[in-house]
Amino acid sequence: MSLVITNIGELVTNDPAAGDGADPLGVRRDVAVVVEDDRIAWIGAAAEAPLADADEVVDAEGRAVLPGFVDSHSHLVFAGDRSRDFEARMAGESYAAGGIRTTVAATRAASDEQLAAGVRRHVTEMRRQGTTTCEIKSGYGLTVEDEARALRIAGGFTDETTFLGAHVVPPEYAEDPAAYVELVTGPMLEAAAPHARWIDVFCERGAFDEDQARAILAAGAAAGLAGRLHANQLGEGPGVLLAAELGLTAVDHCTYLTDDDVDALREAGTVATLLPGVEFSTRQPYPSGRRLLDAGVTVAIASDCNPGSCYTSSMPFCIALAVREMGMTPAEAVHAATAGGAAALGRSDVGALRPGSRADIVLLDAPSHVHLAYRPGVPLISAVWIGGRIDNVVAPKEKE
Amino acid sequence: MSLVITNIGELVTNDPAAGDGADPLGVRRDVAVVVEDDRIAWIGAAAEAPLADADEVVDAEGRAVLPGFVDSHSHLVFAGDRSRDFEARMAGESYAAGGIRTTVAATRAASDEQLAAGVRRHVTEMRRQGTTTCEIKSGYGLTVEDEARALRIAGGFTDETTFLGAHVVPPEYAEDPAAYVELVTGPMLEAAAPHARWIDVFCERGAFDEDQARAILAAGAAAGLAGRLHANQLGEGPGVLLAAELGLTAVDHCTYLTDDDVDALREAGTVATLLPGVEFSTRQPYPSGRRLLDAGVTVAIASDCNPGSCYTSSMPFCIALAVREMGMTPAEAVHAATAGGAAALGRSDVGALRPGSRADIVLLDAPSHVHLAYRPGVPLISAVWIGGRIDNVVAPKEKE
Repeated sequence: MSLVITNIGELVTNDPAAGDGADPLGVRRDVAVVVEDDRIAWIGAAAEAPLADADEVVDAEGRAVLPGFVDSHSHLVFAGDRSRDFEARMAGESYAAGGIRTTVAATRAASDEQLAAGVRRHVTEMRRQGTTTCEIKSGYGLTVEDEARALRIAGGFTDETTFLGAHVVPPEYAEDPAAYVELVTGPMLEAAAPHARWIDVFCERGAFDEDQARAILAAGAAAGLAGRLHANQLGEGPGVLLAAELGLTAVDHCTYLTDDDVDALREAGTVATLLPGVEFSTRQPYPSGRRLLDAGVTVAIASDCNPGSCYTSSMPFCIALAVREMGMTPAEAVHAATAGGAAALGRSDVGALRPGSRADIVLLDAPSHVHLAYRPGVPLISAVWIGGRIDNVVAPKEKE
Repeated sequence: MSLVITNIGELVTNDPAAGDGADPLGVRRDVAVVVEDDRIAWIGAAAEAPLADADEVVDAEGRAVLPGFVDSHSHLVFAGDRSRDFEARMAGESYAAGGIRTTVAATRAASDEQLAAGVRRHVTEMRRQGTTTCEIKSGYGLTVEDEARALRIAGGFTDETTFLGAHVVPPEYAEDPAAYVELVTGPMLEAAAPHARWIDVFCERGAFDEDQARAILAAGAAAGLAGRLHANQLGEGPGVLLAAELGLTAVDHCTYLTDDDVDALREAGTVATLLPGVEFSTRQPYPSGRRLLDAGVTVAIASDCNPGSCYTSSMPFCIALAVREMGMTPAEAVHAATAGGAAALGRSDVGALRPGSRADIVLLDAPSHVHLAYRPGVPLISAVWIGGRIDNVVAPKEKE
């Protein structure tokens, strides 16, 4: 089974050696891509594309082709919505992590089928917007059974599942958080581990402190789960330094960073995952992507899609925010949403388009990746291939 | 030909008498709408909907139904793009009106067919995002022939055409702007007037001053064109007071307003049209919608879709910005994007869903209008009817 996408006006490869070296995207122009089964087999000049051998030829009509977005941070296993919380916040109330408990109650009350339908709906929505890999966390169950089922359900949609029993302390443990940490590191971890690749902790005032985070990540590591952290979202704190000390693949939010935090991230090679939709949806100040990039830190952008602090699933929207609000160029923002997300998940098979890469491909209805920031809010995703297969949920190109 | 949309969870009528009076949207719940030909014929309880008589029944499945968006400010007759300008601006350069001249050169060089294809593409894109009425301006021709043809082309897509010969002084008149004003008020107006409903002036430093604006609007009025203004975008200035003095239907941008400006708008009943995509795309400060609403001014939100200062066509994106950045509630922002836009165009047939209204209807893939702000960037438009006819360019609802 082979597919040729030809007449590509601009191909974002994320292979710096492939481009002119002016930006991180490794842009090539007037090229074709050959896909064999689920992989990129060949990239070369459009005029030299082996069209005669192809099972299918798609004419990109001079438009831009990118690696699919890699969204390394989402919370899709939930029930209910929190639009009332959102309205209250926009009317002046501040964001508090405690609102998570509302979603916990609704999620516990939902059936497996309801939760799976919700994940399917949101994953479909993400694909329509160009996301071809997404991470999904648990964290709205907070019982042994509910966390395990959240991960089991998430595993039906992605390999990148994350156990987040340590999201908040649930109400029934409010008087004894230490007992909840014991539960998370004991029976809950045991039930969750077979269904998870990662373990995560919300290390923040009002959630879990440094010692608790350290204990939970250590237990996860012993159970074979790689660690990641939510940290420094609501204020400066110990989470980013802990992530760097432990050499974690990524630490997420990074809204409030000291110079020491930035230095530690660079030295550890830990990816800083920025979640601009959160700052948009909570009216918090945006962190500077510019500061991190200038310091040599690898930056990822992710959606954090969740019903409380940020209910967007749109990576193009996050790219536009990163450019408007975080001092990143369009090229840096697109890189962070593709190669950056792949780095944040420790993945080398996605986030780039090189021979051997997974054929996770987005065709824009625009001549350049710049349009993702230049045309904020506009649905520009014209076609999506995942592992070489066209995804049929994308809107058809308009007829002219 | 009759259509019934039933099982509507939330219907935004924009008829304050229809709702509970708590917000301007006149929300009704659990209702059905009957459409006869191109008009709303009946609204009532879903249980009482006359399904047996219908030619077609659509089940809204509890989701939200709104009036289509009325986008009262766009510049869609152009060629080329200005993504390089955008990148430069995001890298720190400030927005200058002079960049318009780049688009003027490309537009003059384009064929009628190229310009019409561009308008069609952008109008289609708007419809996919729920816009059912859009105003379209000339202003990138700036010769007698090019302005007339821009309006002739725009008239193929909307009745709301606006002659904006006074967008900037074109390079060939740089040494003699008074001669250009004579052209605009003389032969250009004569050629444009048969194709236009409105006349508009960019009244701003670097474009046209108060006396010039006054002369151009007076000439337009004599030719039967109703006036509107671009004003107070780049700084305080005389445009808003002029609009109020002349009793114009609307004045657009209103980024920098004095207290006198706000008072004058209220007293004149002139609609203040806010264009939040412009502030997003130029990194200018946002005006306060809250201040205007609290003062009793009618507020509209529009896209200003154009290749220079704001290349979004997305009214949902503008609603999300109005809530995040302009102090408006989700209800106020949705009202401004529907009823507000209709008021800005002096239209009573669109922007509301009442018996007798045009059947311009949007079905959201969400239970409430709040989701347009709560889920920024996400394409939530599930179906669009224009004059009672389904628009087939919208993405199909995902299969579950």
